[in-house]
Amino acid sequence: MPDLRPVFFVIGVMLAVLAGTMLIPMVADLAHGHGDWRVFGVVAGFTAFFGGGMSLACRQPRWSMDLRQAFLLTTSSWVVIAAFGALPFVYAAPNLTYTDAYFETMSGLTTTGSTVIVGLDRAPPGILLWRSLLHWIGGLGIVAIAVALLPMLRVGGMQLFRLESSDKSEKALPRARQIATGIGAIYVGLTAVCALAYWAGGMTGFEAVNHAMATLATGGYSTSDSSFGKFDSAFLDATGTLFMLIGGMTFTLFLRASAGEWRPLWRDGQTHWYLAVWLWTSLALVAWLVLHEDKPVGWALRQATFSVASIQTTTGFASADFSTWGSFAHVVFFVLTFVGACSGSTAGGIKIFRFQILVEIVRAQLRHSIYPAGVFIARYDRKPIPDDVAQSVLSFIALYFATWAASAMALGACGLDLVTATTAAATTLGNVGPGLGEIIGPSGNFAALPPAAKWICSATMLLGRLELITVFVLLSRRFWRA
Amino acid sequence: MPDLRPVFFVIGVMLAVLAGTMLIPMVADLAHGHGDWRVFGVVAGFTAFFGGGMSLACRQPRWSMDLRQAFLLTTSSWVVIAAFGALPFVYAAPNLTYTDAYFETMSGLTTTGSTVIVGLDRAPPGILLWRSLLHWIGGLGIVAIAVALLPMLRVGGMQLFRLESSDKSEKALPRARQIATGIGAIYVGLTAVCALAYWAGGMTGFEAVNHAMATLATGGYSTSDSSFGKFDSAFLDATGTLFMLIGGMTFTLFLRASAGEWRPLWRDGQTHWYLAVWLWTSLALVAWLVLHEDKPVGWALRQATFSVASIQTTTGFASADFSTWGSFAHVVFFVLTFVGACSGSTAGGIKIFRFQILVEIVRAQLRHSIYPAGVFIARYDRKPIPDDVAQSVLSFIALYFATWAASAMALGACGLDLVTATTAAATTLGNVGPGLGEIIGPSGNFAALPPAAKWICSATMLLGRLELITVFVLLSRRFWRA
Repeated sequence: MPDLRPVFFVIGVMLAVLAGTMLIPMVADLAHGHGDWRVFGVVAGFTAFFGGGMSLACRQPRWSMDLRQAFLLTTSSWVVIAAFGALPFVYAAPNLTYTDAYFETMSGLTTTGSTVIVGLDRAPPGILLWRSLLHWIGGLGIVAIAVALLPMLRVGGMQLFRLESSDKSEKALPRARQIATGIGAIYVGLTAVCALAYWAGGMTGFEAVNHAMATLATGGYSTSDSSFGKFDSAFLDATGTLFMLIGGMTFTLFLRASAGEWRPLWRDGQTHWYLAVWLWTSLALVAWLVLHEDKPVGWALRQATFSVASIQTTTGFASADFSTWGSFAHVVFFVLTFVGACSGSTAGGIKIFRFQILVEIVRAQLRHSIYPAGVFIARYDRKPIPDDVAQSVLSFIALYFATWAASAMALGACGLDLVTATTAAATTLGNVGPGLGEIIGPSGNFAALPPAAKWICSATMLLGRLELITVFVLLSRRFWRA
Repeated sequence: MPDLRPVFFVIGVMLAVLAGTMLIPMVADLAHGHGDWRVFGVVAGFTAFFGGGMSLACRQPRWSMDLRQAFLLTTSSWVVIAAFGALPFVYAAPNLTYTDAYFETMSGLTTTGSTVIVGLDRAPPGILLWRSLLHWIGGLGIVAIAVALLPMLRVGGMQLFRLESSDKSEKALPRARQIATGIGAIYVGLTAVCALAYWAGGMTGFEAVNHAMATLATGGYSTSDSSFGKFDSAFLDATGTLFMLIGGMTFTLFLRASAGEWRPLWRDGQTHWYLAVWLWTSLALVAWLVLHEDKPVGWALRQATFSVASIQTTTGFASADFSTWGSFAHVVFFVLTFVGACSGSTAGGIKIFRFQILVEIVRAQLRHSIYPAGVFIARYDRKPIPDDVAQSVLSFIALYFATWAASAMALGACGLDLVTATTAAATTLGNVGPGLGEIIGPSGNFAALPPAAKWICSATMLLGRLELITVFVLLSRRFWRA
């Protein structure tokens, strides 16, 4: 059993920060004259009190964190933050059950964007802002974890992205702080630019800020039940497409670009594949929409590029309802739910670099099958892929499908029909948002699911967000051994 | 470009054997006084002429076969045999289009069992027997390939099952012949025992022989549109379950048992896992059927054990229509479509040993995540799993899902709805037989699919049957280089 005090200490600090964040929707409701500001105030106080107390109780003069504590912290911090972040949904306007509130919060923090709330257009500003903020801090959190923690924990091949200097232990900490600050600044800056563009495109300031946070976090919560469909603006759709695509890119590349190193960004293989998948899938859909569904070319281009970006970057905004686009579109969006975007972004899913590695390994294997005496080396980013990375990546892909199948069966046991169960499992595991079918499709809602299904979905969102292994480690007996 | 003469020579010999097999349904139709005997006679003559001519033209005084020729032979022999095997369906009773006939033949040879024929109960004996024979020779063929060829070709981790002595080249050939003869005898013997049991359980002799061939081959063609449902017999369902499970087991283990070595059969880890998956899935379904669907326990036990065995062994016989068993059953059967049975059996799917290896590798990775300095070795059958086997197995699983996704998208582009497209891709890739949904569900039929979809399904059946890599190798440019 690892020493839990450092874990509790950090979670306590995080809860105090969460309490501070709750003051933002409080101010929004206060400015708008809505009585829910009291809820945010009280919950913020309670959370700060609890978090502060926990930190103080577990404070130690000197502390460090080993691997097991890091694993434990990663998973439990999301679980606990969601537990407190859910409270405003229970006591403020939508007055959700705790199950619904936890689902909504986990969906927000993991930047999934599946919602159980109907009537967003009439909701007070505080709760709408709270949903967007959950996305936004969750998105920043996952980028930080992907840059700093997952490579160290060797999760799903993420050891590929270890920062060169992080092995030199002495300089590691200041450099990590510098990177964190840099990425944070870029994240804030991009969100601000996105909000300005949305505002220029006709959104109100409030809508623009909320949608910008949901876009950069590739989350998908909107301030309207009809999402981007409310605005019906080609400019807004194009802006959304652009910033969703940015949200799905590797943030460390932006950091290097901001220091004048543009080359890695332009030359990054993962980014090229990612944009190629988006482009070709969009074009295939345009062809289908024009030739088979008799839609006008302009409309098809606008809707296909937006919707493919929305699902591939695991954002989940809806512009038009793609469940009316016919069979090919359904299967394409179902498959896209698994793909995801780049590593070190706010997006979920299996992620592009894992498919690149799969292709490279299969290619080397095929050659080896033909010439058993030859030596064929699979490469990523021009470097040979080490055996442990190859196995991590491939087993991650297999495990991803196994987890999907297990979740789908569990959801089936809750009474969800085949399409709802399989697409709910896929969309929550990939942190996408909408599923397919009448219940949870792009114009649907997760409210109708039974409570057990909502808890299962909350768990799969967390599993997907933390790249499976981080959570599964906690289930091994060896982890808890002294 | 490899020398094609040895390939043509062997295919020619195979066609001559196929022509000989066609005489069996000819005799059946003749005995029954049905005029279609002439069709079988003429097609047999044509096939024998073509095959014999091809062999003679490509005969060489001395010949050997290298790896590339072996790959080419494996894939092209199935394609060509199906092309000739389809002719009776075109000219005899059901008078199918060539597309339908090719689909039906490929479905038979790959022991898939998806059918486009309606009205089996009124069909003449010759064509029914031809369908069963296609299963039966296809089943024997795949066992031979799995024992002799795939380990040599290093396909999807099958190098694990290389026969110990096959490296000593001198004794390899006689021993291979001995193994082939032994496995053939066991296959014939088991089919005979199964047929006798079916006959004792109330089938006619003709029904018993046909169903026995379809059972041991884990194929699934029946002589009735309502499959095993026609007989409504608990004894026949239990017998079918038993022999389907036998068909999904590793045949070399039977061979060793027949030589007195029973220990490997009892102690085989893959067999244990295989039966455990069958048992626990059946029990979960029984619980669901009794508790949620209010079915009687006895009925639930009989139907669940039969249907789970039918889908898991990739046979695809229907006893009751499990599409009426509710949501959990749908998802379970959908997931089972991917699982499959043991290596070296007549069954398709991903196969149990690959999941064992996945679990072992993930377990070692989790331990390594917790203790980065420790050395944790994944084992299969008490031996460490070599890195190349691990990568082959894991990339096979990932590639299997990728192929499924690509086929489902292609079927979606043919206009198949989401459930039909995804389950048709899964059931043909896994060589199972029935899909889900109203069109291709257990009481449905593939006849209604558009021609393009039938060709896609024929291709995925072949891909699944030959474990993907065997076919994909032919698509690499390097293969065709001199």
